[in-house]
Amino acid sequence: MLRFNSDYMEGAHPEILARLTEMNFDKQIGYGKDEICEEAKRRVLSACGCPEGEAWFLVGGTQTNATVIDALLRPYQSVIAAQCGHINAHESGAIEAAGHKIVGLPHESGILDAEVLRAYLTAFYADPTYDHQPIPGMVYISHPSEYGTIYTKAGLEALSAVCREFGLYLFMDGARMGYGLTAAGADLTLSDIAACCDAFYIGGTKVGALFGEAVVFPKKDTCRHFFTTIKQHGALLAKGWLLGVQFDTLFTDDLYLKIAANAIEKAMKLREMFCRHGYRLYADSPTNQQFFVISRARYTELRRHVSFELIDPLPGDEVVVRFVTSWATTDEQLDELEALL
Amino acid sequence: MLRFNSDYMEGAHPEILARLTEMNFDKQIGYGKDEICEEAKRRVLSACGCPEGEAWFLVGGTQTNATVIDALLRPYQSVIAAQCGHINAHESGAIEAAGHKIVGLPHESGILDAEVLRAYLTAFYADPTYDHQPIPGMVYISHPSEYGTIYTKAGLEALSAVCREFGLYLFMDGARMGYGLTAAGADLTLSDIAACCDAFYIGGTKVGALFGEAVVFPKKDTCRHFFTTIKQHGALLAKGWLLGVQFDTLFTDDLYLKIAANAIEKAMKLREMFCRHGYRLYADSPTNQQFFVISRARYTELRRHVSFELIDPLPGDEVVVRFVTSWATTDEQLDELEALL
Amino acid sequence: MLRFNSDYMEGAHPEILARLTEMNFDKQIGYGKDEICEEAKRRVLSACGCPEGEAWFLVGGTQTNATVIDALLRPYQSVIAAQCGHINAHESGAIEAAGHKIVGLPHESGILDAEVLRAYLTAFYADPTYDHQPIPGMVYISHPSEYGTIYTKAGLEALSAVCREFGLYLFMDGARMGYGLTAAGADLTLSDIAACCDAFYIGGTKVGALFGEAVVFPKKDTCRHFFTTIKQHGALLAKGWLLGVQFDTLFTDDLYLKIAANAIEKAMKLREMFCRHGYRLYADSPTNQQFFVISRARYTELRRHVSFELIDPLPGDEVVVRFVTSWATTDEQLDELEALL
Amino acid sequence: MLRFNSDYMEGAHPEILARLTEMNFDKQIGYGKDEICEEAKRRVLSACGCPEGEAWFLVGGTQTNATVIDALLRPYQSVIAAQCGHINAHESGAIEAAGHKIVGLPHESGILDAEVLRAYLTAFYADPTYDHQPIPGMVYISHPSEYGTIYTKAGLEALSAVCREFGLYLFMDGARMGYGLTAAGADLTLSDIAACCDAFYIGGTKVGALFGEAVVFPKKDTCRHFFTTIKQHGALLAKGWLLGVQFDTLFTDDLYLKIAANAIEKAMKLREMFCRHGYRLYADSPTNQQFFVISRARYTELRRHVSFELIDPLPGDEVVVRFVTSWATTDEQLDELEALL
Repeated sequence: MLRFNSDYMEGAHPEILARLTEMNFDKQIGYGKDEICEEAKRRVLSACGCPEGEAWFLVGGTQTNATVIDALLRPYQSVIAAQCGHINAHESGAIEAAGHKIVGLPHESGILDAEVLRAYLTAFYADPTYDHQPIPGMVYISHPSEYGTIYTKAGLEALSAVCREFGLYLFMDGARMGYGLTAAGADLTLSDIAACCDAFYIGGTKVGALFGEAVVFPKKDTCRHFFTTIKQHGALLAKGWLLGVQFDTLFTDDLYLKIAANAIEKAMKLREMFCRHGYRLYADSPTNQQFFVISRARYTELRRHVSFELIDPLPGDEVVVRFVTSWATTDEQLDELEALL
Repeated sequence: MLRFNSDYMEGAHPEILARLTEMNFDKQIGYGKDEICEEAKRRVLSACGCPEGEAWFLVGGTQTNATVIDALLRPYQSVIAAQCGHINAHESGAIEAAGHKIVGLPHESGILDAEVLRAYLTAFYADPTYDHQPIPGMVYISHPSEYGTIYTKAGLEALSAVCREFGLYLFMDGARMGYGLTAAGADLTLSDIAACCDAFYIGGTKVGALFGEAVVFPKKDTCRHFFTTIKQHGALLAKGWLLGVQFDTLFTDDLYLKIAANAIEKAMKLREMFCRHGYRLYADSPTNQQFFVISRARYTELRRHVSFELIDPLPGDEVVVRFVTSWATTDEQLDELEALL
Repeated sequence: MLRFNSDYMEGAHPEILARLTEMNFDKQIGYGKDEICEEAKRRVLSACGCPEGEAWFLVGGTQTNATVIDALLRPYQSVIAAQCGHINAHESGAIEAAGHKIVGLPHESGILDAEVLRAYLTAFYADPTYDHQPIPGMVYISHPSEYGTIYTKAGLEALSAVCREFGLYLFMDGARMGYGLTAAGADLTLSDIAACCDAFYIGGTKVGALFGEAVVFPKKDTCRHFFTTIKQHGALLAKGWLLGVQFDTLFTDDLYLKIAANAIEKAMKLREMFCRHGYRLYADSPTNQQFFVISRARYTELRRHVSFELIDPLPGDEVVVRFVTSWATTDEQLDELEALL
Repeated sequence: MLRFNSDYMEGAHPEILARLTEMNFDKQIGYGKDEICEEAKRRVLSACGCPEGEAWFLVGGTQTNATVIDALLRPYQSVIAAQCGHINAHESGAIEAAGHKIVGLPHESGILDAEVLRAYLTAFYADPTYDHQPIPGMVYISHPSEYGTIYTKAGLEALSAVCREFGLYLFMDGARMGYGLTAAGADLTLSDIAACCDAFYIGGTKVGALFGEAVVFPKKDTCRHFFTTIKQHGALLAKGWLLGVQFDTLFTDDLYLKIAANAIEKAMKLREMFCRHGYRLYADSPTNQQFFVISRARYTELRRHVSFELIDPLPGDEVVVRFVTSWATTDEQLDELEALL
């Protein structure tokens, strides 16, 4: 069946599979302490313009969010996120399981505004009983957001300034980072992100890897004993070199950005296609997730031939649906899809 | 200074202090395994019409909420509460610290409506990805609520029915239970509560005791090894008989209800007084917490002579304030207050 | 029945009850933010020779241990204790519930030796895979220990030196602190303890208070937002002034040390009495807990008339038992006991 | 360099890589809800003789231990393990991080004896203050153990009987399950294990897969909402089909057992080789981990040419070392090793 549900439906970029196959019987030491991981970390940090920082490879997104947040926060602290933030809505309480309350704030199509944040924090500290609540310790954002939208450089710098003013860590979930970096009109680079955030990660799972997320701490020793924290979270891969090989490949000759750009190109084509056929956009996303409003009848009809996600029912007879392209999406798949619209 | 901040500002009913003084050098065995506790539990369960149930004495409200919720929920479960619920707003993340997400729902002046709950649960299970969220395991309510309002018998039965339909525990925070039971127009008895809830507690701290909350599980063995859970939460008082004496006293000759009724009488008088002087009610509370809307200027002026809580700033120049009476409030205190209005 | 089970069987020193009764209808502000608490903290810190430090009042021992340990440790850290340490043996997993492993080390009648600690830590870091284990973050000791024994000044200084060398906090559980300070031959003062430890507490529950433990951080800001941490642990007493009154009384005119000295005097008399009657000492305790080895038959016989604790079965037909005196033990009680020996 | 450190040093069985490559651009639905996973689960359950049970695929061992233990235990429960158990020694406190104390018992070269367990439990419940300790809720064992030794059918049945008598879950860590099943003299089958244990897992990471552990609950609904628990632990792989393909391959035509048998054959040859050269065995392991006692000088010399693990220093000048074979070990590697002995 034609599938546009998500960007984690294919395996890995063929170059990765080729390298894994080629190295299959080389014996590597465990837990990411091998030389390939070292080289891959060097490449990732160099791409982020913070060679003196630290990089770590974990397996998946929820795991990475839970591990980093737990590592940075003290028990009495909460994490602030957009109400729709992935940690707040789709991670089965993994953050609370580590003891932290998530405070959801209003957002604009997934984007958290610095002034909304400042207003919240100002009101929080104006309440004389604020110490009966968890103390805000971090802001969590996603780039791109849950609605495919992206932060601007100015927007991120403003958020970062509020965080520093109030003593909060700023942490960016970049499960779809590649698609944010290569979106039309994007002005935010990995170096900008490294300058603004205390921690962020570059998603591999959704951008060309079998699995894997590269955590970056732009400043060394942001988290002491992070290796032990990773292990404690069950997030330490025995064959850590599998992650090293994948990120080493993705960060050689800009492969990561090149394949991400394919998803963007295909998404713009898909969007144009839907608009041409009279579909209504729900959010103005410049990335690989595209949201449309359709009738329930149309939804039922379409789902007979193509799989995609129903995001939200709307009042009345309409629903919000999502179509997602990936690094591997082809023109043929789009042509097939168009025939159904 | 004249104080109307809360109902935990005085010590204990004199009869309690007298008994404590009288028994001071009797040696009691520890941890609530003494005979006074046994007798007090018997009295409490009898008052609740569930002599075959279980009662336990803990020290404070947040502690009790955290202990009971942790005891009843499995790690993958969340607890549903009114957005303003005490566990969600004023317990420093104690529930999340034990690993559970709190889902805040809209409410009417603190009261959670059965249909709002049903709508939430229906939508939750209609989402095909619901298993990426914590599974609702409990509904937490307060009686009286954060805004002094109370559940009706019909309202509680309706909530209970929805909970049973969806397999959720229903847990009532009764930190101010006495004031709910004796409120004007209240039709809900302890027996009704025992019939509707899986767990609830009867607050002593705010109703005549130095401290202490009596947890009731109407059905035996609702929580196995609850003693160990209490101890694990740091909630086991070494001199548990102090709690036994207090609840034994409060549940002898209806002392608990009698002294609660004083707070209600004084609150109605206070309310009438404020209304007479042209103050505007914010919520229609039949209990010992009364909420008014006043200007910031009036607030500043009043606070020079009487202490009370500022609950919420309103848009514009007004604020919501709270005045609270207690089992020990006197007519003289009200007269002094009236002179300031 | 004659009872020598523990030192938490009586109520409080009569002066405390008198003050509580006298202040009963004064309205106090909540959560320990009142002036009596401020004054009591000042007195406690002054007694500890660290007026610039911080003091906090909690309700019970397990609660205090869990709150302080959780506040000081990071999630990846463990706490080291004597194998018999209270947190390891009798706190229902409260420390693990907050996420921390307890590493039990061998001890001498409850006392942890600095060289045993150093040897453990040296071996720990010599293991190349140590980062697959929780990193030691704290040493927990009790003074007096579980076996009534006490630290010497030299012993504590040596432990403290090892802790500083390896970057560990040193935390002393002083649930029976008064009895340690007034023991025959004790050379350790509160000021010495404040100089050696990062945190410790002075037990009230077992030394003249109804309940209450005074936590001391000799250095200010050792734990940021400790108020919120206390609340999160359910350890914040609404009527915090009850704790203030008790510690204010105990730390006025050395009442704490004076009443502790009574327990020591009575314990020495009890010990002499048992020895005179041919009972065998199990541990050489200079404090208010005395341990003897007796036959099971003798145990059964004695328990018919006096209650006390069976601590451990020994191989063969003997058991270790414990008799405890308190600040309130009288000569008459000892005379009654002697008649049974 | 010649490496005998562990059995997770190579990639995957070539057939697995071939299938992954072949399927790389087929779009699969996420989170293990695909048909390949269904088929793989069917095969695994069939191999275990419990087709009506449940199987789940997770990524790694520590993660699996933490997830299963957290799913099965209530907060007040502890888990019992051999003192050397992996969860107690090398998982960075992952079990405690989920709130559970590990109680370490004595063992024979890694094997927990039913009578040792019964004696512990009997003494535990004989202590009248046992409810001040976490209540034992589970026994955790490894097959093979940390020392390469294996359970017999009789030994496991005896353990299982004690667990059922005392109401404990029995959970087997089978990270190296294949090597236990194919060891010389092994009489324990997957069906026996399914009959004795409430939960166990079959390790892929160390036996032919890139990564992956197959959890088996012989009885359906042992853990309700286990999917959500997996997600909460960050253990849900987005591309779950990667796990399905691997286990489907390993459980087709007995590939799992066939390749495990290679490790055993090579381990027996290695052992014979060492013994022939005068090395002393430390434990009598019939599986792929072999332990020898050698002098420090010999250790240093050998490590110049071959890498392997130092397990424990011994008193005096000797150390315990470990050499491990795997499904991929070749005769050539052994020949190279022999040249160094």
